[in-house]
Amino acid sequence: MKKILVVGLGLIGGSLAMALQGFEDYEVVGAVRSQSTYDKAAARHAADRITFDHAAELPGADVVILCQDPAGIIAFLQEHRNRFKPGCLIWDVCGVKTAVMEASRCLPEGVDFIGCHPMAGKEVSGIDNAEGTLFRNTHFIVTPGPGATPEHLDLLRRMADWCQFGDVIETTPERHDEMIAYTSQLMHVIAVSVCDNDELFSCEGFEGGSFRDCTRVAALDPAMWTQLFTLNAPALSKMVSELEERIHQYRTAIENNDRETLSAMLSHASSRKKQINLERARGDDVHPKF
Amino acid sequence: MKKILVVGLGLIGGSLAMALQGFEDYEVVGAVRSQSTYDKAAARHAADRITFDHAAELPGADVVILCQDPAGIIAFLQEHRNRFKPGCLIWDVCGVKTAVMEASRCLPEGVDFIGCHPMAGKEVSGIDNAEGTLFRNTHFIVTPGPGATPEHLDLLRRMADWCQFGDVIETTPERHDEMIAYTSQLMHVIAVSVCDNDELFSCEGFEGGSFRDCTRVAALDPAMWTQLFTLNAPALSKMVSELEERIHQYRTAIENNDRETLSAMLSHASSRKKQINLERARGDDVHPKF
Repeated sequence: MKKILVVGLGLIGGSLAMALQGFEDYEVVGAVRSQSTYDKAAARHAADRITFDHAAELPGADVVILCQDPAGIIAFLQEHRNRFKPGCLIWDVCGVKTAVMEASRCLPEGVDFIGCHPMAGKEVSGIDNAEGTLFRNTHFIVTPGPGATPEHLDLLRRMADWCQFGDVIETTPERHDEMIAYTSQLMHVIAVSVCDNDELFSCEGFEGGSFRDCTRVAALDPAMWTQLFTLNAPALSKMVSELEERIHQYRTAIENNDRETLSAMLSHASSRKKQINLERARGDDVHPKF
Repeated sequence: MKKILVVGLGLIGGSLAMALQGFEDYEVVGAVRSQSTYDKAAARHAADRITFDHAAELPGADVVILCQDPAGIIAFLQEHRNRFKPGCLIWDVCGVKTAVMEASRCLPEGVDFIGCHPMAGKEVSGIDNAEGTLFRNTHFIVTPGPGATPEHLDLLRRMADWCQFGDVIETTPERHDEMIAYTSQLMHVIAVSVCDNDELFSCEGFEGGSFRDCTRVAALDPAMWTQLFTLNAPALSKMVSELEERIHQYRTAIENNDRETLSAMLSHASSRKKQINLERARGDDVHPKF
């Protein structure tokens, strides 16, 4: 029997370990650090087997899935680079790809690292909230390095299929990081910025769905998002700067009571959104969760 | 039999006319302007009776509900100020309250205007999308003027109850406009600003739920939102300015790789959001829709 080692059974790792059980002829082993996660993972049968000793599992693991935060993944690759099984496939799940692809250069030849980013999540974290159906109909982004073998890419697609991802999107780490700065990181900057307003606690009764939706992701893990933001600083900074500029243009038009400019800006943006809605409705039925 | 006249059968007016049917001993009459709305409203039985001639209905209407855009409401009050039935109750549904309350000063004594804002909606408009259940468990904000009678306020509460609003929140027009600038208008400025980015059409496959949620309301009606923004310019401008400042602070920390500041800012904002989530979960089961 072959072995998949999932390192870290948080929301994503726990959900992956659940989703992957029964995949081909693989045993799914989950590696944890705390007794409390061990107990919860065991109670929920999050993996075929759960262990504290990831180092002992590495030499026999055909697939290693790194589900820590970015700094944890980078440190893990460095620390264990000579323990991986020759010919094995390692993939990760974190939200920045250039930095982890660079870190993976420390790996010996024959150990294949493919950067991955499942576009799934929840506004709550931990094994308590993990579920095997988390990835259903979401995007699975992969950023293979130049040395990625066709066999490993094929294996990765079969795993994605087994987990019921809606599609697999292959791109470069740089393109991933640019796009994610826009579609995900910027949304988190906005959400926390809105929640920093003095009125947050006095606006009860006045919130509509738009407020709830926009601020949903503000309940984030500060340590992890500090890493994600700083590891993608150039791309994110560009996106934030463009948003600042655009918001400032709206403010200027509003303050000047410039209805013509305001109406033209709103027409432009809303017609773009309506067009995207139409394209997406035609295009596919993939419903990203996070 | 008494009469409720709903002026304008768009998304909100159409949904109110549907929801109010059967309320006490009132006939619900819907006033429309176009043949196409007439036909659709008739086919869906949106009201007990539908008419093109709102002016003829006014002298016999005990309750008049104005469901046009803000400029339409203000113009209607001015134009028909001497046609309303003495002792009647007029209320409106638009998203700014100071401007309509001021406009209502043109009404003769004994005609009672109460500003209202049902915190319900959809990202699509028109009678096609109206439904009688739209208001279920949403907030109903009312801003009575100094002359509002207890009888009319009580009648309004019974109507809100019949429409299954989750709660009725009484406040001043000024406070309403301040809060709505934060919880609703700012969310719309953000959504359109995000959609104005060049990457909107190239980011397919990279959007998660946070992107979809944040941009949902960008598919707005430009003419109406130009009015809403400019009629609430001072409050909205203050909110946009505060957001600009906060977003800029994030960018500065990201560009300077200042992990300590970034982590402190993220901790502060996320803990506020987590606290609000807890309070809201304890507090009530009112789920605003827009």
